[in-house]
Amino acid sequence: MGAQIDLNADIGERFGHWHLGDDVDAELMALITSANLAAGFHAGDPSVIDASLVLAQRHGVSVGVHPGFGDLVGFGRRHIDASAAELVNDVLYQLGAVAALAARRGLALHHLKLHGALFMHAARDQPFAELLVEALLQAAPGLPLYCLPDSALTRAARAGGIEVVREFYADRDYSCDGSIVFVRRVPRLDPEAVADKVLTACTEGVVTSVDGKRVEVGFESICLHSDTPGALEIARAIHRRLTAAGFRLAAG
Amino acid sequence: MGAQIDLNADIGERFGHWHLGDDVDAELMALITSANLAAGFHAGDPSVIDASLVLAQRHGVSVGVHPGFGDLVGFGRRHIDASAAELVNDVLYQLGAVAALAARRGLALHHLKLHGALFMHAARDQPFAELLVEALLQAAPGLPLYCLPDSALTRAARAGGIEVVREFYADRDYSCDGSIVFVRRVPRLDPEAVADKVLTACTEGVVTSVDGKRVEVGFESICLHSDTPGALEIARAIHRRLTAAGFRLAAG
Amino acid sequence: MGAQIDLNADIGERFGHWHLGDDVDAELMALITSANLAAGFHAGDPSVIDASLVLAQRHGVSVGVHPGFGDLVGFGRRHIDASAAELVNDVLYQLGAVAALAARRGLALHHLKLHGALFMHAARDQPFAELLVEALLQAAPGLPLYCLPDSALTRAARAGGIEVVREFYADRDYSCDGSIVFVRRVPRLDPEAVADKVLTACTEGVVTSVDGKRVEVGFESICLHSDTPGALEIARAIHRRLTAAGFRLAAG
Amino acid sequence: MGAQIDLNADIGERFGHWHLGDDVDAELMALITSANLAAGFHAGDPSVIDASLVLAQRHGVSVGVHPGFGDLVGFGRRHIDASAAELVNDVLYQLGAVAALAARRGLALHHLKLHGALFMHAARDQPFAELLVEALLQAAPGLPLYCLPDSALTRAARAGGIEVVREFYADRDYSCDGSIVFVRRVPRLDPEAVADKVLTACTEGVVTSVDGKRVEVGFESICLHSDTPGALEIARAIHRRLTAAGFRLAAG
Repeated sequence: MGAQIDLNADIGERFGHWHLGDDVDAELMALITSANLAAGFHAGDPSVIDASLVLAQRHGVSVGVHPGFGDLVGFGRRHIDASAAELVNDVLYQLGAVAALAARRGLALHHLKLHGALFMHAARDQPFAELLVEALLQAAPGLPLYCLPDSALTRAARAGGIEVVREFYADRDYSCDGSIVFVRRVPRLDPEAVADKVLTACTEGVVTSVDGKRVEVGFESICLHSDTPGALEIARAIHRRLTAAGFRLAAG
Repeated sequence: MGAQIDLNADIGERFGHWHLGDDVDAELMALITSANLAAGFHAGDPSVIDASLVLAQRHGVSVGVHPGFGDLVGFGRRHIDASAAELVNDVLYQLGAVAALAARRGLALHHLKLHGALFMHAARDQPFAELLVEALLQAAPGLPLYCLPDSALTRAARAGGIEVVREFYADRDYSCDGSIVFVRRVPRLDPEAVADKVLTACTEGVVTSVDGKRVEVGFESICLHSDTPGALEIARAIHRRLTAAGFRLAAG
Repeated sequence: MGAQIDLNADIGERFGHWHLGDDVDAELMALITSANLAAGFHAGDPSVIDASLVLAQRHGVSVGVHPGFGDLVGFGRRHIDASAAELVNDVLYQLGAVAALAARRGLALHHLKLHGALFMHAARDQPFAELLVEALLQAAPGLPLYCLPDSALTRAARAGGIEVVREFYADRDYSCDGSIVFVRRVPRLDPEAVADKVLTACTEGVVTSVDGKRVEVGFESICLHSDTPGALEIARAIHRRLTAAGFRLAAG
Repeated sequence: MGAQIDLNADIGERFGHWHLGDDVDAELMALITSANLAAGFHAGDPSVIDASLVLAQRHGVSVGVHPGFGDLVGFGRRHIDASAAELVNDVLYQLGAVAALAARRGLALHHLKLHGALFMHAARDQPFAELLVEALLQAAPGLPLYCLPDSALTRAARAGGIEVVREFYADRDYSCDGSIVFVRRVPRLDPEAVADKVLTACTEGVVTSVDGKRVEVGFESICLHSDTPGALEIARAIHRRLTAAGFRLAAG
């Protein structure tokens, strides 16, 4: 094969002394190729960000910024009814914050991916998506966006000339229309079954939907949520299976 | 004459819908030549920062970042016993945040000035000053620091090759050793008396201390605190007197 | 006449060193009979709350707690998509916090009034309204609620046996169905016109709607928003006109 | 023997979705007799507090409030240079908040214990200790304080007539003068050795200091830090050994 594929995960979703579930960032970093760094609003204080950058550098992982709603207690999963202008300012603030910490470690931002409820908001809200794209073209020209393949942000980014990296969600189910089945709490998944699904998506460009249909999927990056139960085992299985099948894991 | 001098003030020390005293930012911006923008930790949310950037752009004012302790309720005036490493990460985070918002408006950061208790901490704490300089050389090479003329940060910056802009404090009294007399609450000052003091400092390089001595002062920028009572009238008097004496007000 | 009426306003909507518009709390306290104290989530840190309690005590003003969404930067005016259970916990937390500070000054809570977007949420969301009423019956039995006359919270409170104090909104327009006309920004109002409207509502039980209809209104308290431009002048006019008409201003 | 002793631990030191180390609150609750509930400033949002209250109720554990500095990112372990008046207001705010949530579950506060850097501040700073005692006598008369046996707060509490519950620190070393040896990071301790130490302290009233001296200790409660590595095993060992020796574990 020789094809290349990116494997991304959220990293640094800690705050101060706190973490979510088991803290597997150090182990995950050895398996993924790009990391979405929580940027302080839903998780990730400056010292957590710096620690993640040092870790990313050690493993040669590309670093992206992962801005969210200003909602530590809700982990950025609760929608806040803010204006598009406010939210764009919040995103740029977080982007620059992580960029400066990265520059201190000799790293440059590789991409931007929105988090949680803000990710969903950008997928649906066209005025926000368009204002964000306009602002990013000024503030961070050339920075790719990780997006849902079909979303308001993907359309706005393409219209504005921003590179879009489409994601395949390893630990989520797909509907027959290609959309993700939203769940409040992801159950513990069989790592090998997930790796199977990922390998099929990479080799054949299809995924089997929850109702048994073969659905075409196009993507440039595989997303694995680091707070999915057993994320580390899943990452290992994906890494092993893709490598065995001849794929080269690397950020674009 | 023909000499050039910079007049700086803190701008954007608001938060959400709140402000301090009378909000005179818009008027002050027409008089000053460089602005220290509160960066979110002691004041200044992303949308306040953006509004200040737009205002600075309109008036051709150079923008600096003004990081403080993470202490909104205490306005960054209360020392927090954090490690040097934590504080350096906090400063870089704020620096980058304002830099990205500035880039979106086509502006680049002109300088960095620490705020309140963090400014005083950097003046005294050599390990923090040195770690900060080391980090800034990586994260923001070439960015000048506004400092107390005699301080740990000034020494560390010079040792590291960072440009230091020394300040003269228009609205503060001086001791006979050239240090600032710290006061909890600045009284209402006579604008003309302040302007006199500033003009003497600019032309003769001296200030009269609280005990009547002539003290030499060297500086490249005049600092006026925007929360000093009557700051706007003081700024007008300084601007008028310096201009009349042939000084050109401009950021370095 | 001899009738008694309550005049309430939001007090302590400051944070740390910041305030909204002109800070007229001290003058307003001499005119109102009950105060809704911001409780820390949308405004009002512990020391601001204590200062307001001392002021209320001096003027014999009854103190209520005024809980809001956890949203300082948005001043509690932005809806946050939190669960009913979370929000009830947030309300009790704020209620107890103000109650303890009040107890230290020898005061007891007189009422609870929700703030901003949380006030509107409780007016519309029946599950939240019912869970809140159930919790308040345990945590603060006997504490009256200030509410919109027709709302989910009013219905739930009555069903649960909690006393409801209905409000008349002095500085808001009414629709012909008796509902309030929502505006993003209240214009500067003529204090005498507002006082006229209030007096008519108190004596005749009617208000003229924006489309010229006479609408019946029933209420036990007059609400004046302290951030309405010219609030102090409006409060003076209401106070003067009601007193002249023989009303006794007092909290119920 | 038949003697009674209290075993207390900090509970609810979580925030939103985050926790520290392994979350052993549920298991610890079955072993301790009083719980110090983080109150929102250094840890513990309202919904975390409520969950801990429900757990305490199930296990018949007495609940105390555990106020700290307003420092989530530093977990209340960093001193903030705030005035005594501000800090007293912060403590009352947290006390009332937990009291109201407790009242909703039919529980009353059993005690107050300060957290981290605020605990140490109250042990040393007499003006703060005295102002706090004065305020607590008004706001929460009769509420006992858990304190260091020899500290400014203990002295102020006794002078003011507040009951003091002295603690023995199971997982800390003692100096020959009876003071605690402060450590940044507690190593993993042998549960049986800790239980030995506790049993000796309970039966003989002495502890062996780090330099091998027998030091007298007087106390009414045993404190076990829930973030000490292996806290759960230590709690089990203490519980087993004390019970076997005839002690009845119960809050005073």
